[in-house]
Amino acid sequence: MAQSSPVKGLGEEISSVQLDEKDVLKVEEDDGDVVDPWNVTSKSLTGVDYDKLIKKFGSSKIDQELIARIEKVTGKKVHHLLRRGVFFSHRDMHTILNLFEQGKPFFLYTGRGPSSDSMHLGHLIPFMFTKWLQDVFDVPLVIQLTDDEKSLWKNIKPEDAKKLAYQNAKAIIACGFKLDSTFIFSDIDFMNPAFYLNILKIQKLVNGTTVKAIFGLQDCDSVGKFSFPAIQAAPSFSSTFPLIFGSQTKVPCLIPCAIDQDPYFRLTRDVAPKLGYVKPALMHSTFFPALQGANTKMSASDLNSAIFLNDTPKQIKNKVNKHAYSGGQATVEEHREKGGNCDVDIAYQYLTFFLEDDEKLEQIRKDYTSGALLTGELKKILIDTITPIVLQHQEAMKQVNEEVLRQYMTPRKLKFDF
Amino acid sequence: MAQSSPVKGLGEEISSVQLDEKDVLKVEEDDGDVVDPWNVTSKSLTGVDYDKLIKKFGSSKIDQELIARIEKVTGKKVHHLLRRGVFFSHRDMHTILNLFEQGKPFFLYTGRGPSSDSMHLGHLIPFMFTKWLQDVFDVPLVIQLTDDEKSLWKNIKPEDAKKLAYQNAKAIIACGFKLDSTFIFSDIDFMNPAFYLNILKIQKLVNGTTVKAIFGLQDCDSVGKFSFPAIQAAPSFSSTFPLIFGSQTKVPCLIPCAIDQDPYFRLTRDVAPKLGYVKPALMHSTFFPALQGANTKMSASDLNSAIFLNDTPKQIKNKVNKHAYSGGQATVEEHREKGGNCDVDIAYQYLTFFLEDDEKLEQIRKDYTSGALLTGELKKILIDTITPIVLQHQEAMKQVNEEVLRQYMTPRKLKFDF
Repeated sequence: MAQSSPVKGLGEEISSVQLDEKDVLKVEEDDGDVVDPWNVTSKSLTGVDYDKLIKKFGSSKIDQELIARIEKVTGKKVHHLLRRGVFFSHRDMHTILNLFEQGKPFFLYTGRGPSSDSMHLGHLIPFMFTKWLQDVFDVPLVIQLTDDEKSLWKNIKPEDAKKLAYQNAKAIIACGFKLDSTFIFSDIDFMNPAFYLNILKIQKLVNGTTVKAIFGLQDCDSVGKFSFPAIQAAPSFSSTFPLIFGSQTKVPCLIPCAIDQDPYFRLTRDVAPKLGYVKPALMHSTFFPALQGANTKMSASDLNSAIFLNDTPKQIKNKVNKHAYSGGQATVEEHREKGGNCDVDIAYQYLTFFLEDDEKLEQIRKDYTSGALLTGELKKILIDTITPIVLQHQEAMKQVNEEVLRQYMTPRKLKFDF
Repeated sequence: MAQSSPVKGLGEEISSVQLDEKDVLKVEEDDGDVVDPWNVTSKSLTGVDYDKLIKKFGSSKIDQELIARIEKVTGKKVHHLLRRGVFFSHRDMHTILNLFEQGKPFFLYTGRGPSSDSMHLGHLIPFMFTKWLQDVFDVPLVIQLTDDEKSLWKNIKPEDAKKLAYQNAKAIIACGFKLDSTFIFSDIDFMNPAFYLNILKIQKLVNGTTVKAIFGLQDCDSVGKFSFPAIQAAPSFSSTFPLIFGSQTKVPCLIPCAIDQDPYFRLTRDVAPKLGYVKPALMHSTFFPALQGANTKMSASDLNSAIFLNDTPKQIKNKVNKHAYSGGQATVEEHREKGGNCDVDIAYQYLTFFLEDDEKLEQIRKDYTSGALLTGELKKILIDTITPIVLQHQEAMKQVNEEVLRQYMTPRKLKFDF
């Protein structure tokens, strides 16, 4: 990892790419938050300060007005992850809604860096939301699995990273994406002339100074890391997928992703006009906290830091009861008297991600805050909420055999005509 | 171009790649020679000092012993470009000859950066020699056209660089390469998972410090330039071409190229063992001088600096007579008295490249040196030697239609079984 040195300011140094948005990713802020594509840490139990992040990254807040417009335009109630501010920031979402109103096409692009065999609950969040977007907007969806990135940053052979990508693809497919609208690809497997042509064009426009400033790279980093940002940027452009979009090179793109991926897409948005392409729009999510609290990290090497998608009901129950950081008081008496703190309570926080019923959630919040609901009771609600979700996902995974995987990962035309 | 700053020494700084050969490409030597993949200039009329270059690059001289061994092993007289020291330097050529003696396979890899529509005589040299190698050794040959490189270094759109690659491929095919043994590819067109997998593996092992030191890159250079060396390195490994070599990942490679390309292959040789691959062997050629003399540059923008493959006999005659730098004296009388200087005379130099008859060439050398042969007469010999070669090549070019081009450039199994 190259995050050890202070990242330089961009404004003074950039030559080939003139950045028009706030592009400096400060590695450490005064508030102790660290947010970049490889690190998300906060010193605060309430997690990263997202309003500050919006200001820092130069994006726009997803406010009630935008939510109301999405509901008006789509005629559907928005997903609870939108209602609750999990997807909290955006770029150019109004442009996407304008297109949708005019019946003009766009497409969705999201992805995942396949770093471990088993994904955890937090990994589901962007895919749950992307599935909702696919259902509501009925547009093509491309999902990039950056096995090349994982091989470059972690000590993983490309061949092994590719295997992880396949495993992760199965878990993603199990979220319910429509086969006729979804193309999932591993970078290593999919690499082809159209993809490479866009990568090359982007690489030509981005210099060493820029990737050092945005991604904190140093000369001791591999040149693979220097060139990778172009590989994550390229799928934002429809010309990367001629099988899907034919000769249409300017189909706009909407990228739902966690806010830590924004640096890649700020860079993408800066090169887009120079290539005659459309800047991708974005919707950013907050981070899913670790069981031990928003100031700790989920880690595949610490099995107790997260609920994994292959956990058994017993494991889920034990993990929540033993490890979920509580906002409750030390004793029942004290809790009844003072009430609990939902802002730091992980069981409550997880419910905001997975409990769809707004009224029920609000009642829980009130009851826990007042002390009427005890920590053990709150944890039981969480267990009863996420266990069926995990089991349902495991059941769906069983249906994703090699043949189903092959179908989703075969480069092909989707159901849309371009 | 990034050659303006002094290139740093490598030894102190390299981390991920530990170079075991002399890898520093000094941009300017005391003798005024500049030799790197983008610049070949000398202040001397006799051109670059190649013995110094061998020492600097850490390669081996192609001596009489090696030439004798090649003749013994192949049972054929070596090509005049070998006899005359045009191919003057090598790496691991004895290993290749050992393989050939044992009946074990290897393959040939060469290439070209397609920078202009029309190639000149000098561009033919590596291909003439490579054709001879193909004829003598009867092994697979892959020819890389680095349209991506040209797009990155010159102000050329990738799409236009690709078109130049096709044009250049026609001129290369016209040199007489066997269709059943030759695969020609444009990087942009050929990019695929097997190729990319090797590129990625190489990019993972090479860091920013290394490419800066070897290729003189700076932070203001595009990240495409940082990652390109891996793209030129990858075809040295047989696993890049599964259609040709099946699952054989360790088929050794021999690369005939001009000495200026050696930095790419020093890097390739350094990463090869780390990837479990075989270091490519090399044969290096000297540079073909410009008409105006070895201390000037051939340039596509100066039509009088070179004989182009599409020149008419009249143009050839005029160029040689008007522009070829002469080692003769100012007047006929003086020439008869003092004799000419073959070491700087371009007509004579060109004959060393194109006149196959050793005895005739030696006679010309003697006669010109003694003054018996006048400059006009020497130039006429050159014109009579190269005009048929150019006309024959033009005739051969006419046979290379789109269908023939397609055949050579189609990824496929060649006639060899692996």
